[in-house]
Amino acid sequence: MSQLALVLTTRSGPGVLHEVSGVIAAHQGDITTFTIVDHGEAQTRLLLEVSVPDGESLLAALEAAGSVKAIERVATFQHVFGKRVIIMGGGAQVGQVAIGAIAEADRHNIRGEKISVDTIPLVGEQPLAEAVRAVSRLPRARVLVLAGSLMGGEIEKAVREVRAQGLTVISLNMAGSVPDASDLVVTDPVQAGVMAVMAIADTARFRIDRLSKRVF
Amino acid sequence: MSQLALVLTTRSGPGVLHEVSGVIAAHQGDITTFTIVDHGEAQTRLLLEVSVPDGESLLAALEAAGSVKAIERVATFQHVFGKRVIIMGGGAQVGQVAIGAIAEADRHNIRGEKISVDTIPLVGEQPLAEAVRAVSRLPRARVLVLAGSLMGGEIEKAVREVRAQGLTVISLNMAGSVPDASDLVVTDPVQAGVMAVMAIADTARFRIDRLSKRVF
Repeated sequence: MSQLALVLTTRSGPGVLHEVSGVIAAHQGDITTFTIVDHGEAQTRLLLEVSVPDGESLLAALEAAGSVKAIERVATFQHVFGKRVIIMGGGAQVGQVAIGAIAEADRHNIRGEKISVDTIPLVGEQPLAEAVRAVSRLPRARVLVLAGSLMGGEIEKAVREVRAQGLTVISLNMAGSVPDASDLVVTDPVQAGVMAVMAIADTARFRIDRLSKRVF
Repeated sequence: MSQLALVLTTRSGPGVLHEVSGVIAAHQGDITTFTIVDHGEAQTRLLLEVSVPDGESLLAALEAAGSVKAIERVATFQHVFGKRVIIMGGGAQVGQVAIGAIAEADRHNIRGEKISVDTIPLVGEQPLAEAVRAVSRLPRARVLVLAGSLMGGEIEKAVREVRAQGLTVISLNMAGSVPDASDLVVTDPVQAGVMAVMAIADTARFRIDRLSKRVF
């Protein structure tokens, strides 16, 4: 199987993806990601990531497709940005967790890992619960850190849902019910960031499920 | 036009996107984003973001499609995570820029903006140049901050390319040719992060192209 990441310049208008996906399906290819990079009146640039048995013959067929004007091969997001740590909550604490996670990701990326650290400061139960649920749909997201002083209610429900879908959740030691619902509870925000990276780095020997305590 | 974000549970295998995109094209819909959320032997969960004139009739047609088993309406990534500031470079400096950007994004998000701050610590000219180029393909990325002590060569070329594609680039005041190639040069990393957020926040009165100097 080849993993291809392609930027296609196509005509604009509905049906372009349908034509392109038809060509890919005819080559037994699986589209894993698709986004519109630029959308103009006359032409559109699409980013496609495809897993396909014969990459060269797929490229030739795409070049021949009526709606495709140009094709550029690019690096996949998995290759460039790798696994993602997601940090959300109050700005002061998100910043401190980020400091720990970025410094630790640096140490692993130097040794061949690829880990990025993505954050959003948010206020309020509903926006946070919505963002927690959205992490389960984010490509390459592997661990979520909740960085705040009080989180519960709908956020706790959302944490239980995304954990059931396979996401690891780390919580700061805070008021509310979110710490009880999380895989790991860490008091120091810098350490929470460091542990989040260690939990997903193949270059680290650290597994949350092997720890003898759950609260630090 | 309705903007729909849908998680479709479908059968697994090639051709599913082709069927789904056919239904969407028949409803004059435009797919703006597509990703595979989960990929099992028997079933797959797809995330689709679609812009379509008649959302309800598209939903009915998708429910009737042979490969679709279930449909869930979710929030769009634009709604949940908004515009993105991207910070890359050395861990120590990326962390300090992130502190500034996250604290400033918090202040704007409280007033109704949606800005997230995404980072990756990286070492070396080629990985950094590749990551700079990839930012122009990242959904919702609006401003890039280069946080390091020495960047030039291929990274400078990549900066000029992504600026030509419309991305704003802020550089720390550092050795190498990247500061010369950037929209704005800032010496204090915390301020670089703050200015990056101000540059894209609709809640801020700050435009880089109206500043009377380029280096701070």
